Amino acid sequence: MSGPGRMIGVGLGPGDPDLVTVKAARTIGAAEVIAYPALPGADSFARRIAAPYVSADARELVIEVPITPARGPAQAAYDAGAVRIAEVLDSGADVVVLCEGDPFFYGSFMYLHARLAGAYEVEVIPGITSVAAASAALGQPLTARNEVLATLPAPLDSETLRSRMDTADSFAVMKLGRHIGRIRALLDDLGLTGQARYIERATLPEQRILPLAEAPDPAPYFSMILVTKGADPWLKSPL
Amino acid sequence: MSGPGRMIGVGLGPGDPDLVTVKAARTIGAAEVIAYPALPGADSFARRIAAPYVSADARELVIEVPITPARGPAQAAYDAGAVRIAEVLDSGADVVVLCEGDPFFYGSFMYLHARLAGAYEVEVIPGITSVAAASAALGQPLTARNEVLATLPAPLDSETLRSRMDTADSFAVMKLGRHIGRIRALLDDLGLTGQARYIERATLPEQRILPLAEAPDPAPYFSMILVTKGADPWLKSPL
Repeated sequence: MSGPGRMIGVGLGPGDPDLVTVKAARTIGAAEVIAYPALPGADSFARRIAAPYVSADARELVIEVPITPARGPAQAAYDAGAVRIAEVLDSGADVVVLCEGDPFFYGSFMYLHARLAGAYEVEVIPGITSVAAASAALGQPLTARNEVLATLPAPLDSETLRSRMDTADSFAVMKLGRHIGRIRALLDDLGLTGQARYIERATLPEQRILPLAEAPDPAPYFSMILVTKGADPWLKSPL
Repeated sequence: MSGPGRMIGVGLGPGDPDLVTVKAARTIGAAEVIAYPALPGADSFARRIAAPYVSADARELVIEVPITPARGPAQAAYDAGAVRIAEVLDSGADVVVLCEGDPFFYGSFMYLHARLAGAYEVEVIPGITSVAAASAALGQPLTARNEVLATLPAPLDSETLRSRMDTADSFAVMKLGRHIGRIRALLDDLGLTGQARYIERATLPEQRILPLAEAPDPAPYFSMILVTKGADPWLKSPL
């Protein structure tokens, strides 16, 4: 025994198991203990992406995180999850935490990181972000040269969103949910509807690309609107 | 023979070959023809990342792109490269284009995409961005909850940079080069030096993390400054 184990946050990318990195696949395959969040009573999306790589012998630590309007229950779930992970680390074993997308890009891993990084060694393996995946699936370049790209969570207030949409050259609107109607209206106001593309569940078999006007309201959690104002015209510029 | 081949833009991630995705590794391994940009007379960074996966039988199409103050020579190089790729596609073979990072995130692949996507089938395999890689290597969460993340190219004018730095919750400054002194002064003016982290050549054996004040001037091309204003305090918030 040589001291406590390490917590390894592994980014799994947007959903297609083939978009896991070689390093992540190997790390998951070698893991004795894996941990991942799940909605109470539901399958874990992270576990589904990682499925082809998980060893049959791995011990699985499920962190059930309720989604409630109040912050308390989710925070308590991460508190309890961190305690369980710490127990494994204290025993000398590593814990591989499965993370959808990239662990540090709107990822729930950050809640565990904030609780444990001060006391234990932590490694993070980056993952393909949902933004890169959506851009690839749409065949829509994100950002080039000296352009500014912004990622905007839809729950932000309309004033802030309008200002950030106006000043960025390209932007992705995440977490659309029940905000999609308001986002559509904002894009229309700014004259950006023609440059906006909607996609849901990018890279999964269930992936759908729809005209913005036909996107469902509320939109599913794994959906995104991409707006690119500038990249293409410049890139195509003749000599 | 069943019509023209496909151009496949493959994201290779930030530099560590283990951060190539399973899909990218398989696609590169199966490629009969690979293409990639290189500085005239220099080794290609993309080719170096892909090296463990390239088949010994693959035909290699090097697109030499000069870096000059004027746009013309580089544009002419992409014009000529697109013609050579189109010849292979017309022969019925696929062409796998190797791309550092993510093909659609400040990637040179976009110059080929703009020239060929109208006439040929194009697929893009997303890659780990330099921003996700830097964040992971620094152990520094990028963005959480309803925070806005911006990517800012350092060559932008100071007025624009100041405004975007001021309004984003987190941001990455890319393409530092000879602009690093000006970026340092801007961060200092905005009181953000304490939250700024500098990293160069993330995930490569040559990776260095330095205090911002000790970063070289000019900074190397593969360097970045990450600033996170908000994520950590909230994530750690007790119940």
